[in-house]
Amino acid sequence: MKMLQTKSSLTIIFSLQLITGVPIIFDRGVDDYYWKLRADLLQSEESIAFGGDLHLDENEICANHILMCAKYKEIDEAFYNQREFLPRANFLTVQKKIEQSDVFKIIQKMPKGALLHAHDVATVSQEYVLWNVTYRPDLYVCDIEGKLKLQFFETPDKYCNWNLLSKLRVNASIENEINKRILNQMSMITDDPARAYSDGDKAWEKFQSLFEFLASFMRYKPVFEDYYYQLLKESYDDKIIYAELRTPLPTLYDLNGNKYKGLDVVTIIKDNVERFIEDHPGFHGVKLIYSKNRRVNKQQLNKYLKIYKQIKQAYPSFVAGFDLVGHEDKGPALKTFAEQLLPETQMQGFFHAGETDWYGLETDENLIDAVLLNAKRIGHGYALPKHPKLMEILKERDIAIELNPISNQVLNLVSDLRNHPASILFAENYPIVVSSDDPGLWGAKGLSYDFYEAFMGIMSRNSDLRALKKLALNSLLYSSISDDEMVKAFRIFEKQWQEFLSEMDEKFQP
Amino acid sequence: MKMLQTKSSLTIIFSLQLITGVPIIFDRGVDDYYWKLRADLLQSEESIAFGGDLHLDENEICANHILMCAKYKEIDEAFYNQREFLPRANFLTVQKKIEQSDVFKIIQKMPKGALLHAHDVATVSQEYVLWNVTYRPDLYVCDIEGKLKLQFFETPDKYCNWNLLSKLRVNASIENEINKRILNQMSMITDDPARAYSDGDKAWEKFQSLFEFLASFMRYKPVFEDYYYQLLKESYDDKIIYAELRTPLPTLYDLNGNKYKGLDVVTIIKDNVERFIEDHPGFHGVKLIYSKNRRVNKQQLNKYLKIYKQIKQAYPSFVAGFDLVGHEDKGPALKTFAEQLLPETQMQGFFHAGETDWYGLETDENLIDAVLLNAKRIGHGYALPKHPKLMEILKERDIAIELNPISNQVLNLVSDLRNHPASILFAENYPIVVSSDDPGLWGAKGLSYDFYEAFMGIMSRNSDLRALKKLALNSLLYSSISDDEMVKAFRIFEKQWQEFLSEMDEKFQP
Repeated sequence: MKMLQTKSSLTIIFSLQLITGVPIIFDRGVDDYYWKLRADLLQSEESIAFGGDLHLDENEICANHILMCAKYKEIDEAFYNQREFLPRANFLTVQKKIEQSDVFKIIQKMPKGALLHAHDVATVSQEYVLWNVTYRPDLYVCDIEGKLKLQFFETPDKYCNWNLLSKLRVNASIENEINKRILNQMSMITDDPARAYSDGDKAWEKFQSLFEFLASFMRYKPVFEDYYYQLLKESYDDKIIYAELRTPLPTLYDLNGNKYKGLDVVTIIKDNVERFIEDHPGFHGVKLIYSKNRRVNKQQLNKYLKIYKQIKQAYPSFVAGFDLVGHEDKGPALKTFAEQLLPETQMQGFFHAGETDWYGLETDENLIDAVLLNAKRIGHGYALPKHPKLMEILKERDIAIELNPISNQVLNLVSDLRNHPASILFAENYPIVVSSDDPGLWGAKGLSYDFYEAFMGIMSRNSDLRALKKLALNSLLYSSISDDEMVKAFRIFEKQWQEFLSEMDEKFQP
Repeated sequence: MKMLQTKSSLTIIFSLQLITGVPIIFDRGVDDYYWKLRADLLQSEESIAFGGDLHLDENEICANHILMCAKYKEIDEAFYNQREFLPRANFLTVQKKIEQSDVFKIIQKMPKGALLHAHDVATVSQEYVLWNVTYRPDLYVCDIEGKLKLQFFETPDKYCNWNLLSKLRVNASIENEINKRILNQMSMITDDPARAYSDGDKAWEKFQSLFEFLASFMRYKPVFEDYYYQLLKESYDDKIIYAELRTPLPTLYDLNGNKYKGLDVVTIIKDNVERFIEDHPGFHGVKLIYSKNRRVNKQQLNKYLKIYKQIKQAYPSFVAGFDLVGHEDKGPALKTFAEQLLPETQMQGFFHAGETDWYGLETDENLIDAVLLNAKRIGHGYALPKHPKLMEILKERDIAIELNPISNQVLNLVSDLRNHPASILFAENYPIVVSSDDPGLWGAKGLSYDFYEAFMGIMSRNSDLRALKKLALNSLLYSSISDDEMVKAFRIFEKQWQEFLSEMDEKFQP
């Protein structure tokens, strides 16, 4: 890439004018100078933007041409010819159209590194949950005031009018009807999201109800185990080689009346991750971020911190850190727990913070606490660009921001993704990783959809393969992978990357 | 205001950590230190934000208390108690509710300085146009394919089936029906803006049709003259003392078949401004920004530039500068005209630029050309925060940004005003002025509504009277008022400001 040699001349011109007060005078003779200054300015912004510090080799340049042809075509069709621009629309209404995009198809093939912000029980596709999980034996259904509840039993309890789901499904029209209701209760998908979720509160209400519905049958130990396997499989299929999963470590159950909590659940997850790695040696691994709902009191938090210490001690490298999750605007603010979290100097925080449109309110200030509590990464950080001092500190301390475009749109922080404030973070090359948050709840899968939205809707039209590659590189660099493991992870990534370039070379060339 | 003495200690802490790599260690003994750092960070951001450099005197502090009580109450009711937050909603649906807000009522009383970004024939309230202008004699109406056309005639032409409007209105139900249609054709107001203007193109289509409808009867010389007087009256009533109005200098007509163009129109405006000032000595004055629709070719632009030179020569202090207006995304880009505008070193540009959601496209790049063409102020600059280098230059060269919140919302750049990128400009104290663009077309009047939206929806909850005062001060400082005139303008403003403080003291104290 061309070096930016012109910054100084630009600076001189503008400083000169500032000092002398004399406007820059162009005359016909120096029109060329106008175009040079203009090109330099564009170039200087491109060079400091996300990915501007990467250099592409020859093969990458070819792949980039193909990628950018597709990107320009899609964007320019919308800008010049009024074709629908997908990142403008709510993801819930355009998911299928995104799948038709050439840019999306390229992104799907591209290795993406790590999945760093995803909540475990919201990460697998609905199809799997519906067609695999809910078709297992021993699953009972009960209708409470128009809402279904599903749970596995050997013998159902007396608290509800339970029916064996498989029996009901013998009738095809009932099966159809029940499946529709199940899908509706585990998904944000709706024809008219603007009406259904007219504000953030309504979106969050529905969103939280999905977790409640899923909890009772996903906590069945055999399901939970296979679910984790499937989660890694869907990630792996989307060219992800490593994941840091936020988990509340739910209490699991089996048909024999056993309960599994805390450390037991970590062991169960770890065993299944290892089972997956055995089957897929190209997958690097998983770490957990123990994440509990923030709507707790100090006593409850102390209990969680105790559990955290216990699991961290048992599996120091498998457990990466701690987080508080849930609808941040509804509090409590992070500062409420500062004095409890402060002494935990050995505990790595990955705090959700600033997932809000409010400016100057408690949720917004959570960003300050996340930084003061030594967060390694910040979950969402949607409100960050409103905080110039925090932005400075973030850059100095190299704290990564976990950006989840589709989540922010579905949960109604922003409607047109071109208004997502992360555009500014990309313009200034902040340490960003893109993630998917809860893809299973809105019909996404892996990271490709969120990469697409970020690349097409939030970054500049000019952002190219360097920016996509940087997203992947960042996801490994800002992960909790140890230095030793990192070498191995990058070796896997580099191999995948070369395969991707070959595939681009083969499939897309004329 | 407390000075920021703590920046250095913060810097030391964070730099130390950066250098040593040792995380900041807190223990129980230094919890206080956490709260001090936290307060310092908040304070340091407040001090660099818009208005943070102003100091309030005792009377202002009292007024500020009243203002901030109202602001906190309104915001906190929305944040904590799920009450409707007005800047979230489309202005077209909440205008009446805004009028009930105590914050709005205080802003209405506050002197606002100058109106710097408004298009003349879109600036007067609809009530005046409907009940005054369209009830004048000699106004004829004609229905072309369901669209009304209004024009003044002595004897109507043969190109349409003209009817004297006053005759039709003798029938009350016809009057009612026609008035509804007239209002609809001169206003963006609709019950469901999200449906009616589902994207920017649809909003702009309607928007442009309003100008076409207004043009044929507003260009009647007696109406145009009174309209200007009314424009200044409504501004003055909203505590505005000076205006820089964008005008295309439309060709005026009278009943005798005379046409008035270019310089004649400037003279007509100037005469009516003087008539207004005679009646209202507290009003400082007006300057014009000659503004033509950007959808022209180079020859047409040359014609405009010739007219510009002619009117500037005739009225050097009344004519402030030049602009190209209209739907920026539809082009042509500003760069198309760079070589024509470049040699006009004596011409002050006030270019619309970056009024777009698109990032990296031509409209976005207009920002670069506006700066290179030595714009004194930038109209909208909505896309600015995505351009870190341009932002630097803007600050160095002290180029003001004309922010028009309601316009940006109604024309569908942003739906929830909390997502307006100007939050970032406010956070870093960029030279911003708030203006109203085309208030008459969406039921606003003067600057109060836009000040309200900026203060409540775009600035931080913590932004206070200093920020509002700074908006007013900026509007004078970044105007084209000469140094000599400036002293007089500030004298008028200062007097109004003291009256405002007295009124706050009297009316709002218990």
